[in-house]
Amino acid sequence: MEKMKKYLAECIGTCVLVTCGCGTAMLVGCDAVNGGGYILTALAFGLVIVGMAYCVGNISGCHINPAVSLGVLIKGGMTGSEFVGYVLSQCAGSLLGSAILAIIFTLGGVEDKTGGFGANGLGGVNGSIAAGLVVEIVLTFIFVLTILGVTDSKAGHGSFGGLIIGLTLVLVHILGIGLTGTSVNPARSLFPAVFAAIFDNDQPIKELWVFIVGPFAGSALAAFTYKFLSAEK
Amino acid sequence: MEKMKKYLAECIGTCVLVTCGCGTAMLVGCDAVNGGGYILTALAFGLVIVGMAYCVGNISGCHINPAVSLGVLIKGGMTGSEFVGYVLSQCAGSLLGSAILAIIFTLGGVEDKTGGFGANGLGGVNGSIAAGLVVEIVLTFIFVLTILGVTDSKAGHGSFGGLIIGLTLVLVHILGIGLTGTSVNPARSLFPAVFAAIFDNDQPIKELWVFIVGPFAGSALAAFTYKFLSAEK
Amino acid sequence: MEKMKKYLAECIGTCVLVTCGCGTAMLVGCDAVNGGGYILTALAFGLVIVGMAYCVGNISGCHINPAVSLGVLIKGGMTGSEFVGYVLSQCAGSLLGSAILAIIFTLGGVEDKTGGFGANGLGGVNGSIAAGLVVEIVLTFIFVLTILGVTDSKAGHGSFGGLIIGLTLVLVHILGIGLTGTSVNPARSLFPAVFAAIFDNDQPIKELWVFIVGPFAGSALAAFTYKFLSAEK
Amino acid sequence: MEKMKKYLAECIGTCVLVTCGCGTAMLVGCDAVNGGGYILTALAFGLVIVGMAYCVGNISGCHINPAVSLGVLIKGGMTGSEFVGYVLSQCAGSLLGSAILAIIFTLGGVEDKTGGFGANGLGGVNGSIAAGLVVEIVLTFIFVLTILGVTDSKAGHGSFGGLIIGLTLVLVHILGIGLTGTSVNPARSLFPAVFAAIFDNDQPIKELWVFIVGPFAGSALAAFTYKFLSAEK
Repeated sequence: MEKMKKYLAECIGTCVLVTCGCGTAMLVGCDAVNGGGYILTALAFGLVIVGMAYCVGNISGCHINPAVSLGVLIKGGMTGSEFVGYVLSQCAGSLLGSAILAIIFTLGGVEDKTGGFGANGLGGVNGSIAAGLVVEIVLTFIFVLTILGVTDSKAGHGSFGGLIIGLTLVLVHILGIGLTGTSVNPARSLFPAVFAAIFDNDQPIKELWVFIVGPFAGSALAAFTYKFLSAEK
Repeated sequence: MEKMKKYLAECIGTCVLVTCGCGTAMLVGCDAVNGGGYILTALAFGLVIVGMAYCVGNISGCHINPAVSLGVLIKGGMTGSEFVGYVLSQCAGSLLGSAILAIIFTLGGVEDKTGGFGANGLGGVNGSIAAGLVVEIVLTFIFVLTILGVTDSKAGHGSFGGLIIGLTLVLVHILGIGLTGTSVNPARSLFPAVFAAIFDNDQPIKELWVFIVGPFAGSALAAFTYKFLSAEK
Repeated sequence: MEKMKKYLAECIGTCVLVTCGCGTAMLVGCDAVNGGGYILTALAFGLVIVGMAYCVGNISGCHINPAVSLGVLIKGGMTGSEFVGYVLSQCAGSLLGSAILAIIFTLGGVEDKTGGFGANGLGGVNGSIAAGLVVEIVLTFIFVLTILGVTDSKAGHGSFGGLIIGLTLVLVHILGIGLTGTSVNPARSLFPAVFAAIFDNDQPIKELWVFIVGPFAGSALAAFTYKFLSAEK
Repeated sequence: MEKMKKYLAECIGTCVLVTCGCGTAMLVGCDAVNGGGYILTALAFGLVIVGMAYCVGNISGCHINPAVSLGVLIKGGMTGSEFVGYVLSQCAGSLLGSAILAIIFTLGGVEDKTGGFGANGLGGVNGSIAAGLVVEIVLTFIFVLTILGVTDSKAGHGSFGGLIIGLTLVLVHILGIGLTGTSVNPARSLFPAVFAAIFDNDQPIKELWVFIVGPFAGSALAAFTYKFLSAEK
């Protein structure tokens, strides 16, 4: 029962991430730096973490991201079966969030300014898979290293975690939106890509694997780095 | 006497919310994403909570929102008669804030760029009541879930509450301004709609019920969800 | 000696406020909401408080504003002679900050986009003294009420003060830049107006009294209000 | 071994600073205030500190800036040999960050909107070395004074340090981007200038000494000032 509550918490948190993050991109657009959409989209993704860390985070730790769960798994903070449960719940949340966006935008006749449910893609790097992978690895490394550091109980940062992690997610979106749209989160990438393929006849789903492999690789690198740096003699 | 101080605190806080939040929308506009008004309006609403939580919040808890008071009531944090007193004080604050805006904008001959006292409306969702209700329920759910989580004494987040709640209000405005203007607060919606009806011959007051029903429904949903998630075995 | 260190700290803090706040307005402009200058100027003023509260604040409490010192005086937090010393130091800081800006902008041949050292004025309210006074009273009331609340030792908000106060200064600038330029601080208004009169043949100095009377009145109102609200039975 | 971990931590942190800070400037541009690039660049630099302070900061204190290390050295917080190790590690991080940017922008065929790896320069002050030095001294003074204050153990600001320091770095970028691009950090300036000289046939490297001398001078001034202000009788 307690385990199910954690899974429900992860599902809700990831749903809010997709609804608010991708929804903001769809509503205000994020291509044009000169418009205000770029910064609004970066803030939306980050502020979801700020909020959710202090509510669903009380229950499940607020990973709401399979790459983060992988980092926690490597650092020894959860079991393999919990990892599977978390990831499945996060994917369910991504589905739910995409569905809520489909409902709101359809009911309200609102234009999707991203043209594809805010799915990640390689347009900003002219289709270069190598560039996309490097970007996602670097950004996820930064994001997960911060998560592991600020939640390290030895460091004693208390309730600062959610705020700092959320602001770091704003940071990696500021650099990444113009390059890959910033995934750093396979669950966030999954269902927007699926919905875009279904509703918009768009093909970002061909590039989806980049936003699964890249974040997992960056997270693993961060986990091994932080383990090394913080190891007692 | 102590009760009256709480009511006065709620009145002041809600007055500041309407003055700064709706006032910023009126001054800088919030329709055009490409202008700077959208993000300024979102920040104004959120930063009111950041500030007020640490001053009137010391007295009354700084609900300054009937939907928040409903969530607290459901969670068992206040009595029914206190709830009524809080809601009436919040509505009085909304009236006072709208009056201050009318005075400033009239005395200074300043143009109201929203054309209607920053009242909420369904223009962004092309008049769809269903879309408007979904948006307000989802946004209020996110907002109140965060409030209940960060102020949960078992979680021990101390003085982080006001900051986190304010940043979450920024978040729900970022997604919602372009859709419904973001209410999540019946008191914030009430008198701007009334003043717009009186002074601007505008009709957002027809849609006012959406911004009462939606926030209350979203808040109730959040309260039951958080009660379930955080219940001890 | 300890007293002189406090005065030096207030002088440095106020100098930084004028240099960064007015300097940002001069560099990037703040009239046009559609440009990015409005939000940058609001952030600059607020973030000065965020920074200075944790360095000069360790020494003097970081009032860096005569209106804030008046509120502290009324609340019983400082003596009359300390008040005079603080205010004189703050004015010296305003002079120093204005001089630094004159040096940088002259040496570097940089255009002053405000046309008058970022001095406050009544242009945004079409010259209405009444509107200007109402705006400054309301904004200073909000600002000082927050200061008194977050630093109230009974409330136990610890080191949150500087962050919350700075974000509240961002808030009152968001609403006020388009109306009066936002003073809420007679020292911040003083020497930019003097320098504008000397160097730019501008006449904002005629309106300077509004930005002395308004902030002092708003601060006194906030101090009496907070004293009443927080009084023990 | 523990010392090598600190050096690795400083290298990683400085690498992230250059990658995210200069990378954002290169991606979105920062010349045009009316575009969104100015604020995004300021936020990127500051949010790197916010994130890194709570991960690499757990290991090394997160100076990631030779001028900060100088301030700490003067205040008596590190030895001369540690200072040398820190500075070399920071320069290595700057090299690594510049290389990552070269890889991403080359692989992805992305335009460098700064035209020179986000290197600092005197364009904003029309080539005036005096203005550039004044700007860098003033900005670094503000930045390092805040660092020394918020990390002063007597003041007891706990884990607030990284957040406050990062927001102060946002502040000094808001004022400085339009003037010198804001260095306040010789390591941040070093390799972007070198790479710009090599790849873009640009000559900001002639002005590089301004961004070494200015920050060191400003930091020394801040360290002596804070030592004086905070000295016990």
